[in-house]
Amino acid sequence: MALVKDALHIPLSRAWEILEKSVRPLPSVRSSIGECSGRILARDVISPRNIPHYNASAMDGYALSSGDTPGALPSSPVRIEKGRFVWVNTGGEVPPPFDGVVMTEDAFLTEEGDLSIVKSVVSGENIRPLGEDVLSGSVIARKGDSITPVLSALLAAAGVGEAEVFPLPRTLYIPTGNEIAPLGEWLALDPPPPGRVGETNSLLVKGYFDRWGFPLDVAPCLPDDPEIIGAFLEEQAPLYDMILVSAGSAKGERDYTFEVFEQRGRPLFRWLLMKPGRPAAAALLQGKPLINLPGFPMSTAVILWSLVFPALQLLSQGSFDREKVLSEAALAVGRTDVSLLQTYSSSRGKEEWVRFKCAEIDGRRRGYPLPSAAGSLLPLAEADGLALFPLESAEKPRESLIPLMLLRDVPWRERILFSGSNDPAFERIVTFARKRGGDIILRSVGSLGGLASLLRRECHAAACHLLDGTTGEYNTPFLQQLFGQDLPGIRRRLLFYRLQGMILKKGNPLNILSVEDLARKDVSIINRQPGAGTRVLLDYFLSRKGIPAGSIRGYDVQCATHFDAANRVALDFADAAFGIKSAADALGLDFLPLAEEPYELVYRIEYDDHPGITALLEALEDREWREEVDRMGGYRWPEE
Amino acid sequence: MALVKDALHIPLSRAWEILEKSVRPLPSVRSSIGECSGRILARDVISPRNIPHYNASAMDGYALSSGDTPGALPSSPVRIEKGRFVWVNTGGEVPPPFDGVVMTEDAFLTEEGDLSIVKSVVSGENIRPLGEDVLSGSVIARKGDSITPVLSALLAAAGVGEAEVFPLPRTLYIPTGNEIAPLGEWLALDPPPPGRVGETNSLLVKGYFDRWGFPLDVAPCLPDDPEIIGAFLEEQAPLYDMILVSAGSAKGERDYTFEVFEQRGRPLFRWLLMKPGRPAAAALLQGKPLINLPGFPMSTAVILWSLVFPALQLLSQGSFDREKVLSEAALAVGRTDVSLLQTYSSSRGKEEWVRFKCAEIDGRRRGYPLPSAAGSLLPLAEADGLALFPLESAEKPRESLIPLMLLRDVPWRERILFSGSNDPAFERIVTFARKRGGDIILRSVGSLGGLASLLRRECHAAACHLLDGTTGEYNTPFLQQLFGQDLPGIRRRLLFYRLQGMILKKGNPLNILSVEDLARKDVSIINRQPGAGTRVLLDYFLSRKGIPAGSIRGYDVQCATHFDAANRVALDFADAAFGIKSAADALGLDFLPLAEEPYELVYRIEYDDHPGITALLEALEDREWREEVDRMGGYRWPEE
Repeated sequence: MALVKDALHIPLSRAWEILEKSVRPLPSVRSSIGECSGRILARDVISPRNIPHYNASAMDGYALSSGDTPGALPSSPVRIEKGRFVWVNTGGEVPPPFDGVVMTEDAFLTEEGDLSIVKSVVSGENIRPLGEDVLSGSVIARKGDSITPVLSALLAAAGVGEAEVFPLPRTLYIPTGNEIAPLGEWLALDPPPPGRVGETNSLLVKGYFDRWGFPLDVAPCLPDDPEIIGAFLEEQAPLYDMILVSAGSAKGERDYTFEVFEQRGRPLFRWLLMKPGRPAAAALLQGKPLINLPGFPMSTAVILWSLVFPALQLLSQGSFDREKVLSEAALAVGRTDVSLLQTYSSSRGKEEWVRFKCAEIDGRRRGYPLPSAAGSLLPLAEADGLALFPLESAEKPRESLIPLMLLRDVPWRERILFSGSNDPAFERIVTFARKRGGDIILRSVGSLGGLASLLRRECHAAACHLLDGTTGEYNTPFLQQLFGQDLPGIRRRLLFYRLQGMILKKGNPLNILSVEDLARKDVSIINRQPGAGTRVLLDYFLSRKGIPAGSIRGYDVQCATHFDAANRVALDFADAAFGIKSAADALGLDFLPLAEEPYELVYRIEYDDHPGITALLEALEDREWREEVDRMGGYRWPEE
Repeated sequence: MALVKDALHIPLSRAWEILEKSVRPLPSVRSSIGECSGRILARDVISPRNIPHYNASAMDGYALSSGDTPGALPSSPVRIEKGRFVWVNTGGEVPPPFDGVVMTEDAFLTEEGDLSIVKSVVSGENIRPLGEDVLSGSVIARKGDSITPVLSALLAAAGVGEAEVFPLPRTLYIPTGNEIAPLGEWLALDPPPPGRVGETNSLLVKGYFDRWGFPLDVAPCLPDDPEIIGAFLEEQAPLYDMILVSAGSAKGERDYTFEVFEQRGRPLFRWLLMKPGRPAAAALLQGKPLINLPGFPMSTAVILWSLVFPALQLLSQGSFDREKVLSEAALAVGRTDVSLLQTYSSSRGKEEWVRFKCAEIDGRRRGYPLPSAAGSLLPLAEADGLALFPLESAEKPRESLIPLMLLRDVPWRERILFSGSNDPAFERIVTFARKRGGDIILRSVGSLGGLASLLRRECHAAACHLLDGTTGEYNTPFLQQLFGQDLPGIRRRLLFYRLQGMILKKGNPLNILSVEDLARKDVSIINRQPGAGTRVLLDYFLSRKGIPAGSIRGYDVQCATHFDAANRVALDFADAAFGIKSAADALGLDFLPLAEEPYELVYRIEYDDHPGITALLEALEDREWREEVDRMGGYRWPEE
């Protein structure tokens, strides 16, 4: 069956309309009270019992008739005959005709077995009467209420042994792809061969289902073969309420999933106007929803939130709340607005998911977007919040307010935003600052970029290693230029010296022995971004040796971190890169030392008492961190 | 071993200090990546692999050398010889020496097997280079991070098969008490005999452990016997990291738990300055924490939050955050301040947990406390939020701002607060209003109380059935007195007529046949609270018959709802009560009809467009609701 035209390249709202029309709710089910924790009630619960279900004594004491007690006082005790009172424990029944309880402290037994009391009792005193907490016949929980731990205990106490709850749809997840290695095999491959991809999406999908409280089965991975996929779908459809098929969703040579949907079922829609998440599709097979998840993990997450969770709501309770469904699906813990730290250009004509890191700076919540690759989960794992930019949005200027779904509790008060030069040793400090009650987020923008952020009050702290080509002096000339001669309001702290030099291929096959060799025709380099201290160092050496930058092959090709640069040398994109020794060491590359440079922390005096800054300063003294850094190599501590 | 003095009757902060000193963290454990969803990382994770781990094509196309492509344009295609290019699928490897990929759309194969391209390619184009998403050697997750679905997939993609995580302490929960019926037995008892209590606390405890993500075993219920409890504890202690003992914590005749703690272990503290939750205690046995939970369910919940969850944090990660631990433990979804709708007197010298219902009225978040009984879970199940009033707080006047931990997402915009007369039929409307996107919370304050609330703008809507003794007219005279002759700004809506009369014991053993009979010496009644329409009706009949209120036995004994009144008749506390037929019917009591009264909804015109009001008005037409009400008996619909 072919798709109608308005079901191709559609916005999410249209996909939801189609799902709402096509996906029928499953009938509600009765579930025993011990098994239905977390489920949603499908109807009101009327209490069948009173709580308590009898007149219960509220304390240890003697049950008696209040009419026997008037006038009892310490000065004139009243004696109550044997047989006209009875001992009751806390929670025990006050049997008729008794209508009150006297505390042990106000009564004692005489030798004759009578009771002498020093306090009169009114009718109902120290009794929890039948139905005091819950009256039989009253509504104790309503349709739509979640069965919390408290509610399940309450229902059981009221004698409710089973509750009618919304069903848990059974879902099957099917990974597909010739290139996919099952998880166990993937983890054992060391290194995995090129072209193989680990079947890790099922962890993502299963993880979300677990958190949502819905069951999920994971099928073995199927090859890119429409016959096999189609036959498997038809075989499994009777056993499940929904089936998810991963990958095969684009328009490549081996992408068959939608073809199978069309051949075997009734297609509902294909392609969302969404980034990432575009190559998604849905169909009905034997009346059950089929959803095609894109293969890239970030796209998978997006489609889980956007289509799968709403479909689960439709199956289990017949509807979903358009305003809340996405933040529930993404497991958001709240909402906040942040003001953009940089201009963001989103794709007009597409809804776009953007991952943000946030910090509070000078009392304002600020945020910046993380890289947007569909293939990568790292930005999502690191994100504090998610924004879904609507179809019509285009460029958002700096300072625009962005509404975020918060994915974690951001420690606004304790967190500092560090912007500056990338350093693998400093990267490790975060855990040690957290141990001391602070939090740090690291934004790699290069030495100059960090100082500029600090100047614009767009971070709390920066770090730099900037060589002034004229004076040969590090950092100070740049700081003075930005902040003024005496650096008013600025604190500096030398963290360590690190060895800079040339990162070269293992064994140095091109025999590069000096900066001059970079000008050779057979040598190409990878450079760092403008403003990076490492690029400044390269420029310094080039100008000292009189080598024009234009004569260096690859001078204009950039990357953003030491590791990135070293990686590109390792993978033959370049023969040499400027960078630090620890990056070369980590990848087993050769290294030609050229300079030892000071790596300096810079922040504003007014943040002296910021919990993030104090934690950072303390963490810098942490022996465990220093030992880690020593093991990395290429670092030297300043003399104390 | 006996307790030191400063460990008796202590505030929570002191109990925490003692736990922090006494409870040692368990060693961290390695857990396979498929098993550690939701766990907390015990150390930083450094990526052992690059993602991607090879140069991957970003699309279906031809891998080639960028150096072969300059000048390619639709008008002047460039031909690339067989052998100098290779087909790649999306995600496939771009093998060396190739450094770019041309899209299929920009290339076609010639008959000779060469490739003709119409677009030049730069180095790296359409390639996801090795390490683009994650660089090997970089920190991808940190100690203290929770392993979300996203993070577990990311770790697996990076080749991390096991993570070092904080341990899950093994906890045993032991119910005790001679009066306790196991859950299955309890649910089967119909009716349960007086004095028996269902073992429902284990559902509460297990429910919280499940939500917290910690395992829990539940032991069979032990009798109130110190020898048996003590021997069982010593036998189980080697198998668990923590043991919880329920009940036996007060100072009654059968309360042995602390005695056992003292005899067998090292007691840590007893009695908290907390309400509810006072009878709690802790000890160490074989180095393992023992915690005594009070038997009352609300007190159990409070001690789970206050002591058990913090102890789990200490066992699993060595510390807890004092500011956040209670709201995490109570599964709070957020925080908000509400302004009190009524004065609240809390107990000076005790920390007090108070359960609140909330609504937004005229743009302000308001709240009122629910009943505070330690024995009842209903107020906790109904609560929107929790406050913990500090030791030193006493009376909080109306309008005081109270900081709440929110236990659910309150639909502030959709919710109305209804204050007024209690009616079992109207009570059922909530579910039908929710179905229409509104929400209603019901506060029983009587007819007059509701109108006064509406006047003070402390609710959105009220309902009344108030008979004016002088005119015999319902409602209007009272409304005019409060809101002015023409009722400016007020809307009224007659909901139904209901049958009022006398609720009498089954079979009417005292042969009560008229209001006059209430004055008999052998007859006692239960009355409703001042301001209740039902009390007004009683007063009307008494005054018409010339019977002085003082001559009626029980006239001054009050209760708050029709069901409560009927219950007290059913349980022999009174012989008669004024109330509606449906309450008598529900409990199988006799009913003597005396009047049919209009039950009228009253609200302010300005709330006409409030989503809660519109949903309520629509729900009033719901056939399903009307059928339910018809089944209750004693109601008549106004003619349309």
